[in-house]
Amino acid sequence: MSDSDTTIAQLRQLIHDFVERRDWHQFHTPKNLAMSMAIETAELMEHFQWLSADQSRALVGQPERLQAVGEELADVLCYALAMANELGIDLSTTIRQKVQKNELKYPAEEYRGRYGPEDLDP
Amino acid sequence: MSDSDTTIAQLRQLIHDFVERRDWHQFHTPKNLAMSMAIETAELMEHFQWLSADQSRALVGQPERLQAVGEELADVLCYALAMANELGIDLSTTIRQKVQKNELKYPAEEYRGRYGPEDLDP
Amino acid sequence: MSDSDTTIAQLRQLIHDFVERRDWHQFHTPKNLAMSMAIETAELMEHFQWLSADQSRALVGQPERLQAVGEELADVLCYALAMANELGIDLSTTIRQKVQKNELKYPAEEYRGRYGPEDLDP
Amino acid sequence: MSDSDTTIAQLRQLIHDFVERRDWHQFHTPKNLAMSMAIETAELMEHFQWLSADQSRALVGQPERLQAVGEELADVLCYALAMANELGIDLSTTIRQKVQKNELKYPAEEYRGRYGPEDLDP
Repeated sequence: MSDSDTTIAQLRQLIHDFVERRDWHQFHTPKNLAMSMAIETAELMEHFQWLSADQSRALVGQPERLQAVGEELADVLCYALAMANELGIDLSTTIRQKVQKNELKYPAEEYRGRYGPEDLDP
Repeated sequence: MSDSDTTIAQLRQLIHDFVERRDWHQFHTPKNLAMSMAIETAELMEHFQWLSADQSRALVGQPERLQAVGEELADVLCYALAMANELGIDLSTTIRQKVQKNELKYPAEEYRGRYGPEDLDP
Repeated sequence: MSDSDTTIAQLRQLIHDFVERRDWHQFHTPKNLAMSMAIETAELMEHFQWLSADQSRALVGQPERLQAVGEELADVLCYALAMANELGIDLSTTIRQKVQKNELKYPAEEYRGRYGPEDLDP
Repeated sequence: MSDSDTTIAQLRQLIHDFVERRDWHQFHTPKNLAMSMAIETAELMEHFQWLSADQSRALVGQPERLQAVGEELADVLCYALAMANELGIDLSTTIRQKVQKNELKYPAEEYRGRYGPEDLDP
């Protein structure tokens, strides 16, 4: 099974069961889960701390480091899924709405190759 | 469409198209995307900054704040999906492997109701 | 020597010398230092991840954990001092100005016991 | 007054008074202050999110952006000082000890121009 045939709901169920079996809902306040996401994101960031932009791209060809980075990314996502579970948020709906909003905020024509309004002399 | 019938690949495609139409791959180094995830996670955290544990749970019954929190969560996930796209990481595989690893690291019997080995006098 | 007889400039010099002796200025771009501050702050946060508010206060009476927390706090500050060095920012001036600004933004009378305008039913 | 003639204790007192006058100690649990440091660090990071290494260094010559960055740095430090106040940590002692520890961990000869042991083929 891969990203092509895995639904968000299946991953949410996976996390729900893991948490349920350990009776960890008591620790999973939205406040704690937001902190946990921040902690895991920092561990992800640590892999890129001193790398140049190019060195960070080169990771694609380094299977061991890529594996390590993937695990940190998974950690962030597990807590994100746990938060969606605790708060009853439908992630696909929320993501689609946010992308729609960003389509209007950053019109493709105007922002092509530019990350912001001030980015005139990159 | 909801989490039940949306695959990870569909959301990845959505983000890929958004980035592609703006020619933003050039900014999407893994280093920048990790930073971006950290920035958005902090914005998510801000909603819980001064709340007690109970107040953070009470968000479930506050539609407006819940909507705002959902949007921040979506922002984190959009960047996480963008990173998976840039690095060619299959998220469902990586998440399943990580949960499997955590099943061994935190045996359900031993950790029931406890978040860590030192958690004897909570 | 303690906080009473140590100036900010003395600590900045300490960090400057450490970095200089290793020829690390090349890695100390403001971008990398901001990331590093975020990474160290997350390590600090990790000590409080699953603690209740009261448990986090109880740290004051736990010398070993307090020592560990102090070290993480020092890590954040070392990078903050390094950033002030790279950017030529006078920290005491900047902090005094910011506190002055916050005195106006959060009038003491109005905000006594309240962390924000929406904090009517804490 | 500048960094040359301002002691850490003076800045700690400044923050202490600000917090005291608002009766905000109740919100200043170590847990909340660690979160707050992370939130402010992310706002600092946001200034560098899409900048190249060189662009982030160029900030030195851009007074307006430098001012904005300085304010975010001050925000992080204000919360760090507040945490030192709540936990009774002497910052100058802790920083000196940490630098001493790092002197041993990263011998100057061995790490000159290198940020880590794996940094052989940058």
